[in-house]
Amino acid sequence: MPLPTPNLYPAFNIVRLSHVELAVTDLAKSRAFYVDTLGLQVTDETADTIYLRAMEERGHHCIVLKQSDRAEARDLGFKVFSEDDLDRAEHFFKAKELPVEWVERPYQSRTLRTRDPHGIPLEFYSRMDRLAPIHQKYALYKGVKPLRIDHFNCFSPDVDQSVAFYNELGFRVTEFTEDAETGRLWAAWTHRKGGVHDIAFTNGLGPRLHHVAFWVPTPLNIIDLLDLMATTGYVGNIERGPGRHGISNAFFLYIRDPDGHRIEIYCSDYQTVDPDLEPIKWDLKDPQRQTLWGAPAPRSWFEEGSTFAGTEPRPSALAASPIIAP
Amino acid sequence: MPLPTPNLYPAFNIVRLSHVELAVTDLAKSRAFYVDTLGLQVTDETADTIYLRAMEERGHHCIVLKQSDRAEARDLGFKVFSEDDLDRAEHFFKAKELPVEWVERPYQSRTLRTRDPHGIPLEFYSRMDRLAPIHQKYALYKGVKPLRIDHFNCFSPDVDQSVAFYNELGFRVTEFTEDAETGRLWAAWTHRKGGVHDIAFTNGLGPRLHHVAFWVPTPLNIIDLLDLMATTGYVGNIERGPGRHGISNAFFLYIRDPDGHRIEIYCSDYQTVDPDLEPIKWDLKDPQRQTLWGAPAPRSWFEEGSTFAGTEPRPSALAASPIIAP
Amino acid sequence: MPLPTPNLYPAFNIVRLSHVELAVTDLAKSRAFYVDTLGLQVTDETADTIYLRAMEERGHHCIVLKQSDRAEARDLGFKVFSEDDLDRAEHFFKAKELPVEWVERPYQSRTLRTRDPHGIPLEFYSRMDRLAPIHQKYALYKGVKPLRIDHFNCFSPDVDQSVAFYNELGFRVTEFTEDAETGRLWAAWTHRKGGVHDIAFTNGLGPRLHHVAFWVPTPLNIIDLLDLMATTGYVGNIERGPGRHGISNAFFLYIRDPDGHRIEIYCSDYQTVDPDLEPIKWDLKDPQRQTLWGAPAPRSWFEEGSTFAGTEPRPSALAASPIIAP
Amino acid sequence: MPLPTPNLYPAFNIVRLSHVELAVTDLAKSRAFYVDTLGLQVTDETADTIYLRAMEERGHHCIVLKQSDRAEARDLGFKVFSEDDLDRAEHFFKAKELPVEWVERPYQSRTLRTRDPHGIPLEFYSRMDRLAPIHQKYALYKGVKPLRIDHFNCFSPDVDQSVAFYNELGFRVTEFTEDAETGRLWAAWTHRKGGVHDIAFTNGLGPRLHHVAFWVPTPLNIIDLLDLMATTGYVGNIERGPGRHGISNAFFLYIRDPDGHRIEIYCSDYQTVDPDLEPIKWDLKDPQRQTLWGAPAPRSWFEEGSTFAGTEPRPSALAASPIIAP
Repeated sequence: MPLPTPNLYPAFNIVRLSHVELAVTDLAKSRAFYVDTLGLQVTDETADTIYLRAMEERGHHCIVLKQSDRAEARDLGFKVFSEDDLDRAEHFFKAKELPVEWVERPYQSRTLRTRDPHGIPLEFYSRMDRLAPIHQKYALYKGVKPLRIDHFNCFSPDVDQSVAFYNELGFRVTEFTEDAETGRLWAAWTHRKGGVHDIAFTNGLGPRLHHVAFWVPTPLNIIDLLDLMATTGYVGNIERGPGRHGISNAFFLYIRDPDGHRIEIYCSDYQTVDPDLEPIKWDLKDPQRQTLWGAPAPRSWFEEGSTFAGTEPRPSALAASPIIAP
Repeated sequence: MPLPTPNLYPAFNIVRLSHVELAVTDLAKSRAFYVDTLGLQVTDETADTIYLRAMEERGHHCIVLKQSDRAEARDLGFKVFSEDDLDRAEHFFKAKELPVEWVERPYQSRTLRTRDPHGIPLEFYSRMDRLAPIHQKYALYKGVKPLRIDHFNCFSPDVDQSVAFYNELGFRVTEFTEDAETGRLWAAWTHRKGGVHDIAFTNGLGPRLHHVAFWVPTPLNIIDLLDLMATTGYVGNIERGPGRHGISNAFFLYIRDPDGHRIEIYCSDYQTVDPDLEPIKWDLKDPQRQTLWGAPAPRSWFEEGSTFAGTEPRPSALAASPIIAP
Repeated sequence: MPLPTPNLYPAFNIVRLSHVELAVTDLAKSRAFYVDTLGLQVTDETADTIYLRAMEERGHHCIVLKQSDRAEARDLGFKVFSEDDLDRAEHFFKAKELPVEWVERPYQSRTLRTRDPHGIPLEFYSRMDRLAPIHQKYALYKGVKPLRIDHFNCFSPDVDQSVAFYNELGFRVTEFTEDAETGRLWAAWTHRKGGVHDIAFTNGLGPRLHHVAFWVPTPLNIIDLLDLMATTGYVGNIERGPGRHGISNAFFLYIRDPDGHRIEIYCSDYQTVDPDLEPIKWDLKDPQRQTLWGAPAPRSWFEEGSTFAGTEPRPSALAASPIIAP
Repeated sequence: MPLPTPNLYPAFNIVRLSHVELAVTDLAKSRAFYVDTLGLQVTDETADTIYLRAMEERGHHCIVLKQSDRAEARDLGFKVFSEDDLDRAEHFFKAKELPVEWVERPYQSRTLRTRDPHGIPLEFYSRMDRLAPIHQKYALYKGVKPLRIDHFNCFSPDVDQSVAFYNELGFRVTEFTEDAETGRLWAAWTHRKGGVHDIAFTNGLGPRLHHVAFWVPTPLNIIDLLDLMATTGYVGNIERGPGRHGISNAFFLYIRDPDGHRIEIYCSDYQTVDPDLEPIKWDLKDPQRQTLWGAPAPRSWFEEGSTFAGTEPRPSALAASPIIAP
């Protein structure tokens, strides 16, 4: 199945991924992980909610932690260009017979809530409260020095379908893995904001959230985080890496939060603003697609993820990856 | 004079800065500088012309070096989103009574040539020959490991006018320096592609090209370049830096090519895709705007630049910077 | 079995490890690995021999590659303080009834050849030809930018015996792993020159050479090497890492040369010149001793090594490591 | 005047520089600088004294800050190999008719206090209280992540005399600057512990302490410190750098503490344990000896220093450096 033709003039204009709400079972433990260890900044905090931003972000939040009885991922948030784009979005999703509702979200202008065809909960807004810049308040930098949210990665039970749908929304494929035997997509990376991805899809029991990624300045910040986690009780939360991805060429580390939500620390991918940028194709059997240096990913990385609130994941028709660390 | 209201829906869609042609007086010396020292890749080469690209670029060229009797800067090249945008651009510049012509440029689709109101020569195209990716051919990386062209910076005799014009083209101001006494702009950074700038304007005898900048992976690559230049006969070509800019927060180095064209090596600014991103204002009297760490720039940095072909620079009405290294 | 009391006044004064000769089966392939990939500098070269030094070394060679029918490690070379120390060394080894002979080695003053009690071939010299400094010839730096040979690591069939013997030679233990059940040493790191080690011993079929290590400037140079090896046909030569050792606190990478000789790339351990420096003890069951970040080493790393010329390795009485990656 | 022949068998064995006491006029301000900004660890603290160590040090202190009416430098501390070496040191200084006294220093074994021929106050001890390692307690790392004290640098009114005296103590010259016109030493770097220097001497009004240096992991830590100081009120305390020294090849930054005591942040010099290491000679007129990249040092760097308690500095007979930034 070939990649869809890029849709350069989508029905409404999504600027970038923006934020996600994560339901967590012990807010204090999550705070220790996201604030004291990763170094995200608290922008608001109540008994059951913590709002966080990264160092160069001026929007109010990129992660919302919610105390809950069960750990799960909630809405994936995206920023649209204008209020008119929100109305166009409503029209678009309604035409697809997908559920739409206008919801109130603290610190956001009116917010449109919907789901993608596989059931991933999505929310769109145009304006969020803007905060004063802190990117030059170097005394505040700590942990991995997270600069900004970079992307979402989701398990999809049918990556061809996911790509076709997000392509309609204007997400352009930058790299993809094809199952050479079936010709079907095994994974794809799609972007709006000019990096390798705002959202990626990986074959597997889905929809589930595979990970949320943060951009950091250099690989040395990732090494600093590893040293810190290894000596502050988080050695068991280190899942995979550090390494260089074949796909995206980024330097990466995967860690797990206290509830198992997976966070990627990520830097140094490339600029993708050209509308004629050619997607890069990888073979599912090539271990360097995962890690350029050759080390396969552990089984947990292929199998575990966060369920989305209100959506039952279903199996993919494709087989599991042939390359998994023993 | 306040900043103009950002023009979010410009008459035609510029994707990003793309390339510049530099007239040089000794092509072999320039090759030694740009290829052997900086590490740009040759994509084509004739007796009087060298085409260069950086490591993650797939377009054919970002720098064109032309043997010439005199050193000067020629057209600043920009990529537009579609062929239709080129036609809209023609209409726009004609309506402004600016000169337009369609020119043939090797490796580019039809190219529209014009000038901005101060006389800066500009060219716009939609498609350039695409080359195979080399960003993972690590054996080719050398010098400063340049990843991509990042921005142009031009002296302007009237920065308010320059900003007003480029704002019409959809360039959004990210940071600016104001002369507190007159309320006039002293410098401004404006972008299309989602970084701090595609083109910036600095008060001074203009129009002239102040510098062209390349993005590199980390500050350590800049230190490597300094060590290399200092021990291969280029110590006199190091002009300013390394340092952290207050404006843009980028880590920088300024060097001069054998003809005196100024090149900035640059990394780690921030993402600016939000249409409601607030411009950051700096005071002309604040030395940290130039270098966060306090060191003022040398006089040459304020005064010297490359003339543009076919344009006579004229003085600015504003006074010189009050902060110049002795 | 407790550590021996440090011998602060040994019979002769060893300055540091110096060099090793490696027998290789395809000199051209080895040259591509050590020179073109790692970046060592050729100081002399004949049909069957290549002499190499690292960037800050002024002695003539740290690695001697010899074309041979079989791959093996030959003499471990050490530099002594003075010619008198050589005579004292001869006396010492003779008194131990170990074999001694005076040999001619190109570029070295008279050289004393002997073996340690397990049969490791050793050579001692006081003066080697000195070459002009190249550490500021930055145009010569390439590959991993190796600065100097750092240490040898050997499999030992009886680490307690090895440590007792090298302690007599004045090597001071900086860190060690103890088998808690038997109280015996499982591994030990011992130094002369003021770093964590000049030579270390690890339990196993021995004597065999486990690895030779090179010091590099920063972890980023190791990442550069990984990127280079992964894209120039050496992905299969990457064995373990990158990571942070618990023991030594160094950042490391293990790679294999074309014959399987293991090379460690190493940086950022600590200064150990204090004669009262306390050895640090690690538990054999603690996986963080190997990799602070928790990942166990692969089986090959525990089992494979280079045999020494003229010495038959014999098994250790201790069991294998309880912590091996599956 | 030629360099003295290295004294390879000095009368007593100095292991390394160890510590210095700095008299400061506002202990709280000094604490903010050394602890909160640089990241040194407090090991003891009273109303008028703060003891500090760096991250990989296990000796109790490398800096002692003392509240005082006037800022000045006090004893330069050195660690000797054994208690016997202390007695030999007493004999040595007495024979030179230099003042000797045995003093009590908290956390140190018996301590010998004396002065060098120019009046620099020195103290020698063999054993200092040892503390538990913290180099793998990564949660404690902050500021510039100082790993260890690296060296002292002193103004000397007669560098030839200083070098001759410290050569007798076994300090070996690694690099030196000669005044080509007079053939006299303008500056010299001398070591005991195997790096480029434990103590260096620079021509000028002396004796005075020019600076104390700390070793840090990589140049990026120095950039981090600059960003931190520039945004926490210390921009005026940044004096020179960052840069690469020609002499020593180290990456450096010079900053001033609240009393003007100068601190160098330093990394990546080279190993100097070979007894036959050839000193490297630099010309006083070569600006790259100071900064490989060409920038001259500011006037303050040549002229300002901390007086030593109880010693009146006197002028040098040599002229000032011909290379000073305007």
